[in-house]
Amino acid sequence: MELAKRLSKLGTETAFAVSAEAAQHVAAGNRVYPLHLGDMNIKTPDNIIEATNKAMQDGKTGYCPNYGIPKLRELLAEDINKSHGMDYTMENVAIQPGGKPTISKFFMAMMNAGDEVLYPNPGYPIYESQIEFQGGVGLPYTYHEGKDNFELDLDELEQKITPATKLIVVNDLQNPMGAEASEQELNALAELIKRHNLFVLCDEAYFDIRYEGKSRSLAALAGMKERCLVLYTFSKKFAMTGWRLGATIGPKEAIDVIAKLNVNDESCSNHFIQYGAIEALTGDQSGAMKILDRLKERRDIAVSMLNSIDGIRCFKPNATFYLFPNVTSVMERKGFDDYEKFRRAALQETGVSFCTRRHFGRPLPDEKEKYIRFAYSGIDVADIKEGLSKFKDWLS
Amino acid sequence: MELAKRLSKLGTETAFAVSAEAAQHVAAGNRVYPLHLGDMNIKTPDNIIEATNKAMQDGKTGYCPNYGIPKLRELLAEDINKSHGMDYTMENVAIQPGGKPTISKFFMAMMNAGDEVLYPNPGYPIYESQIEFQGGVGLPYTYHEGKDNFELDLDELEQKITPATKLIVVNDLQNPMGAEASEQELNALAELIKRHNLFVLCDEAYFDIRYEGKSRSLAALAGMKERCLVLYTFSKKFAMTGWRLGATIGPKEAIDVIAKLNVNDESCSNHFIQYGAIEALTGDQSGAMKILDRLKERRDIAVSMLNSIDGIRCFKPNATFYLFPNVTSVMERKGFDDYEKFRRAALQETGVSFCTRRHFGRPLPDEKEKYIRFAYSGIDVADIKEGLSKFKDWLS
Repeated sequence: MELAKRLSKLGTETAFAVSAEAAQHVAAGNRVYPLHLGDMNIKTPDNIIEATNKAMQDGKTGYCPNYGIPKLRELLAEDINKSHGMDYTMENVAIQPGGKPTISKFFMAMMNAGDEVLYPNPGYPIYESQIEFQGGVGLPYTYHEGKDNFELDLDELEQKITPATKLIVVNDLQNPMGAEASEQELNALAELIKRHNLFVLCDEAYFDIRYEGKSRSLAALAGMKERCLVLYTFSKKFAMTGWRLGATIGPKEAIDVIAKLNVNDESCSNHFIQYGAIEALTGDQSGAMKILDRLKERRDIAVSMLNSIDGIRCFKPNATFYLFPNVTSVMERKGFDDYEKFRRAALQETGVSFCTRRHFGRPLPDEKEKYIRFAYSGIDVADIKEGLSKFKDWLS
Repeated sequence: MELAKRLSKLGTETAFAVSAEAAQHVAAGNRVYPLHLGDMNIKTPDNIIEATNKAMQDGKTGYCPNYGIPKLRELLAEDINKSHGMDYTMENVAIQPGGKPTISKFFMAMMNAGDEVLYPNPGYPIYESQIEFQGGVGLPYTYHEGKDNFELDLDELEQKITPATKLIVVNDLQNPMGAEASEQELNALAELIKRHNLFVLCDEAYFDIRYEGKSRSLAALAGMKERCLVLYTFSKKFAMTGWRLGATIGPKEAIDVIAKLNVNDESCSNHFIQYGAIEALTGDQSGAMKILDRLKERRDIAVSMLNSIDGIRCFKPNATFYLFPNVTSVMERKGFDDYEKFRRAALQETGVSFCTRRHFGRPLPDEKEKYIRFAYSGIDVADIKEGLSKFKDWLS
């Protein structure tokens, strides 16, 4: 058997290896505090489950259109219009089996071999993987510590652009950093994108995971609607990670191509769960609000405990369920230079399991500061307290 | 917006256009007899639906492993071992969101740009689409009318092979023709494949849709297990087309790559429906048996009515839910040379909706005979009788 040569360029989510190690540690009889993965330990709201069961019982078990069922597309367009201040119609929506499929399909639809693509690093590792696997050239851009959160340096970003640069991935409300552009920054980013005639993968996976303020979409700014494919997912807002349901939203011409890729890749998304998604958008919203309340409580306690550790600096993002504390000093103090050794020692000594900056793209040449990522979507407040107490003791 | 150049090579299932025309005809107040699409008008058995609902209620709503849940992989390996006479383990199984994802992932994993790939034509159009979209070169091979069914000409197939030919797609129990290799033909095909060191996409979507005899798998023959990736689907046997659940089965080395593609493309398949699939494999089988009984009754009446039409020749396949009658004489008699004009006239005049040979790959240079495809998975016996009576009257 000879595997395809292109596989040498295929990346993955190395965070799954962290999960496996954590599971092993549990199996060996130890207590683990799971702060490593973006899964949720919160059940999907009951009304969504009931609507899905009803659709299944009603025989919505055959194929549905490759674009998704019309009613869901229509309602999702309306929902986005409300939250974004836009004017999409169902023709701008193609339902997907998750948020993630929008990433690989975006590059299939918009990227030619050799095209340069700006992407965030640290960032969700599938961007880097799919750019390179599909024959593009990744141009990583990064964020820097600002006053209240991480910030883009748009001059630095713009300097990377060459005539071969065609696309940019924007993940405002960012995984892993929790970074969020201010209104001014977002406007400036839009101007830069138009100036260089770039097309955008606008990853809005965490748009609705927000505790204060209001999320802004790049796609909603003047002249940007025609330049953005938006990644939408039901996973986070409604605790539906394992359902695998999301959508690609954008200009009709691109959506038609994406839907043709749907025919090729999986025919359509699961039929009956789309009725659950209709209930999610139009039914009782108390489930989604409770999810946010629980996440906010976790964020508040985690940030406060992390900042109480001498040598750790941790921002308090208004959105996402990630924290990206600077651990340069504590790693130095404990005598660690290597991320993996630090991570494994923390797991062994305290049971606290987390990812590090290394799980989010190749290190950049000039990196000096060290960061780790905590996800608080899959761990309750009591366990956050217990785990981070042990973590603090170990580091003190 | 500039779409990617490679999209010019992306095909689709043009059968969906037939569906759209049929729906339009219904909307205009007409009666339609839907014999065009391979969807099923049969509900998924209740025990599968109940097991799925229970898993959803039990909170199986978070992510599951990218390979699928271990129990399902284990049970599917056992099930295949029983039906195929093989010795797979769960390491040979990667769960997929449908049968179809195995096609695009097979080419991502096994094909280099410029590789030649043998594929059936007439055949499922996604093979041709994905070979070309991903930079391969398609070598169509065809079937010929034999005594009882369509047959491969292995000499003809072998003559197409060059040093650049690396892969072959085999869809024994074939869509659209209902063709099935005899034991001798399957053995000879395996020898040919080994002689030329080919690797196989073994599309077994219809392996369990069988009315007489026993299905045989190419992967089960001596020396073939290491050369085959098998496409498995829950769609047909359990009337689960809209669930989107299937699996890729094959050598561990290839399955690990396929599972890495799962991480990139969709993370994992829907979690809770995998518990429904466990029930499908291990629970009460009377639902699956009833599905087969209903399909067999439809086949028998459709074949007999088609063969009662002067100038139509229709085989009676032991498997699949497709018929591929030769309509050369009747098209001539009615003065049609063009497939699309014939199809549309039949719809307008009789309400009978079907696909033609043109929906299953590019026509081959030397084609003389004309064929259409009837799918009887989505239409009841009474409607088959009524529709084909009108069809017969129109043609007589």
